[in-house]
Amino acid sequence: MGRLTGGDPSLLRRINSAVVLHALRATDCATLTEVTRVTGLSRPTVEGVVEGLIEAGLVVETAAGEGTARRQGRPARRFRFRAEAGHLLGLEIGVHRVAALLADLDGRVIGAEARDVDETVDADERLERLRAAVAELLRRAGVPRGSLRAVGVGTPGIVEADGTVRLGTALPGWTGLGLGERLGRSFKCPVLVENDANAAVVAEHWKGAAKDTDDVVFVLAGLSPGAGSLIGGRLHRGFGGAAGEIGALHLLGREATPEALLSTTDEPLHPLDEQAVAAVFAQAREGDQRALAAMDRFIRRLVHDVAALVLALDPELVVIGGWAAGLDGVLEPLRGELARYCLRPPRVSLSLLGEAAVATGAVRLALDHVEEQLFAVEGTVTARRRGA
Amino acid sequence: MGRLTGGDPSLLRRINSAVVLHALRATDCATLTEVTRVTGLSRPTVEGVVEGLIEAGLVVETAAGEGTARRQGRPARRFRFRAEAGHLLGLEIGVHRVAALLADLDGRVIGAEARDVDETVDADERLERLRAAVAELLRRAGVPRGSLRAVGVGTPGIVEADGTVRLGTALPGWTGLGLGERLGRSFKCPVLVENDANAAVVAEHWKGAAKDTDDVVFVLAGLSPGAGSLIGGRLHRGFGGAAGEIGALHLLGREATPEALLSTTDEPLHPLDEQAVAAVFAQAREGDQRALAAMDRFIRRLVHDVAALVLALDPELVVIGGWAAGLDGVLEPLRGELARYCLRPPRVSLSLLGEAAVATGAVRLALDHVEEQLFAVEGTVTARRRGA
Repeated sequence: MGRLTGGDPSLLRRINSAVVLHALRATDCATLTEVTRVTGLSRPTVEGVVEGLIEAGLVVETAAGEGTARRQGRPARRFRFRAEAGHLLGLEIGVHRVAALLADLDGRVIGAEARDVDETVDADERLERLRAAVAELLRRAGVPRGSLRAVGVGTPGIVEADGTVRLGTALPGWTGLGLGERLGRSFKCPVLVENDANAAVVAEHWKGAAKDTDDVVFVLAGLSPGAGSLIGGRLHRGFGGAAGEIGALHLLGREATPEALLSTTDEPLHPLDEQAVAAVFAQAREGDQRALAAMDRFIRRLVHDVAALVLALDPELVVIGGWAAGLDGVLEPLRGELARYCLRPPRVSLSLLGEAAVATGAVRLALDHVEEQLFAVEGTVTARRRGA
Repeated sequence: MGRLTGGDPSLLRRINSAVVLHALRATDCATLTEVTRVTGLSRPTVEGVVEGLIEAGLVVETAAGEGTARRQGRPARRFRFRAEAGHLLGLEIGVHRVAALLADLDGRVIGAEARDVDETVDADERLERLRAAVAELLRRAGVPRGSLRAVGVGTPGIVEADGTVRLGTALPGWTGLGLGERLGRSFKCPVLVENDANAAVVAEHWKGAAKDTDDVVFVLAGLSPGAGSLIGGRLHRGFGGAAGEIGALHLLGREATPEALLSTTDEPLHPLDEQAVAAVFAQAREGDQRALAAMDRFIRRLVHDVAALVLALDPELVVIGGWAAGLDGVLEPLRGELARYCLRPPRVSLSLLGEAAVATGAVRLALDHVEEQLFAVEGTVTARRRGA
């Protein structure tokens, strides 16, 4: 820390504070001696910083002996990070459903709420349903709105850095919507909006099927697939935020719409919704030849789109989530065809988080934001954290 | 630099040396006063470092007045980086051709040599042709082999970090070949092997069609397309080095081989080589309906594969190179279809470097290696260079 000596004292205090907070958060609770050892700071500095953190409500002295066996003599004072000092929301705004997760500052989920939404409702009504779900969630958990430190949101479409939906054809009234700004009116804390598949890949990497790899493609396999990718552990959004929006590929040159693929008659399937598709798949399970052929065409399309992603990106792992992940017989054809056509086939897994993936990823994005504020000062502490 | 005070003095010398060298290389020539100002080092330090660099042959004092107008009084001594102090080779090993570029330490190309190779020759003969081209190139340029500081190589296939070709179906005997090790026997300097499309995208970014963007996909459009990508200015190799190896995609589910696509009869085109394809395209230009249809199918396939890359990666720019880039009527269908199907269509350009792209990228990779050695010490100087 030599380069900071004689520098801005308040910056130094903030860095020391972030370092101590990070050390405390990494353990259940710790003594001042332990914090001194881990951080390399002097004991008086640690004492001063811990007092400040207690005043800020972020750290608390644990009761004597809590979390540790009592030893001989006067026990050392122990302190812990107060994960309950603030809260996070992870929101999903989907075609058929809005959902909200409430988490503490450790990212532990302490409540969930969801509402069905008709796919035809406009943006105002969709957001109203979401606000009602959030209000109910906070009320049940007894968490005041002012305790929220950040809100993450996952939704279909191309999302700008400022939270505006540049293009979102899946939801009525979504293109051009200032989603971050609209939701910001309901919260005093930052609102971070992300593409739904991007949120989902973050979630599977955090606590799902991709915990053990930093190079993963998550396929949100619905009627039209979309994907989110981590490359070296970082979200790959693409130059214009459209990376992984693979849905149009099957249209190229052959107009293979889902309506045509899934039809068991000479006419396109209409209306095309999950219920209609489920009916086709049920017929297939009963041995209906035309339904079997339709299901085969649908799975071939998914295989093709996933193969395109895999050939372009070469991930270590592909995670299949979304509605089509629940279909029988998706995984084996995928593995077989990828093994046949990819020079280096990736592992293929089903999502572990299922329909919670998008909202869980939104929680993680909110948590990332809070951690940047609490634990990182101009990159210095980030580097330390990696080393820790 | 406070954190280095009292540290390893030889490390400090190396860093100072790299900083001074970098400063000199950024100008035609400079006075000690100018170097002192740009580097922030003391004058005695700069004097010592420059003397050391002169002894090492990397810096030379310019003749009085060289490169600058003479001023009143005794002119200040001026020094310049000796780009001629070492040399680089950029090699391409392709299906039909081996090529070599010779460059100085500024990356300026000072000689080129190429040889045609039959696509059926084995690895030994192909490498022998390359060695002959290199020997001729060095001889003509009057550059001794010992002056080479690094050799870059671009070749089809999946290449391991150690220069082994893990999978290379385009060239006989390529899969499993220890290419880096084999070429290393001919040179005393490091040999860096890279996939050909990866080398090409580096080249177009360095001095071609992609100079103004860090997010670019280069499509090496031959009979079977491959691609190289930069994301945020960094080469995206993929988890297993197979990113962009998109050639198999068109096979998925429909067995659309180039032989079938390009046939003007009911039989697959055989043999499938560039001459046969050129004949089909010549027929098309004369208005032959079956040839026109074959050309259309071939271009559609290219459009489809490029669209897959674009949808997966969302680059700012796509550069089309390789053999098919020379075909009439490739660019417009590409632009039209990408605009139609991509949520955020990228710009599309033709390669500016043409058939020199792969070898030029190989020069750049060799130069990167040398710059790491000369100018960067454990990341410290890299950070400075960005700021410079």
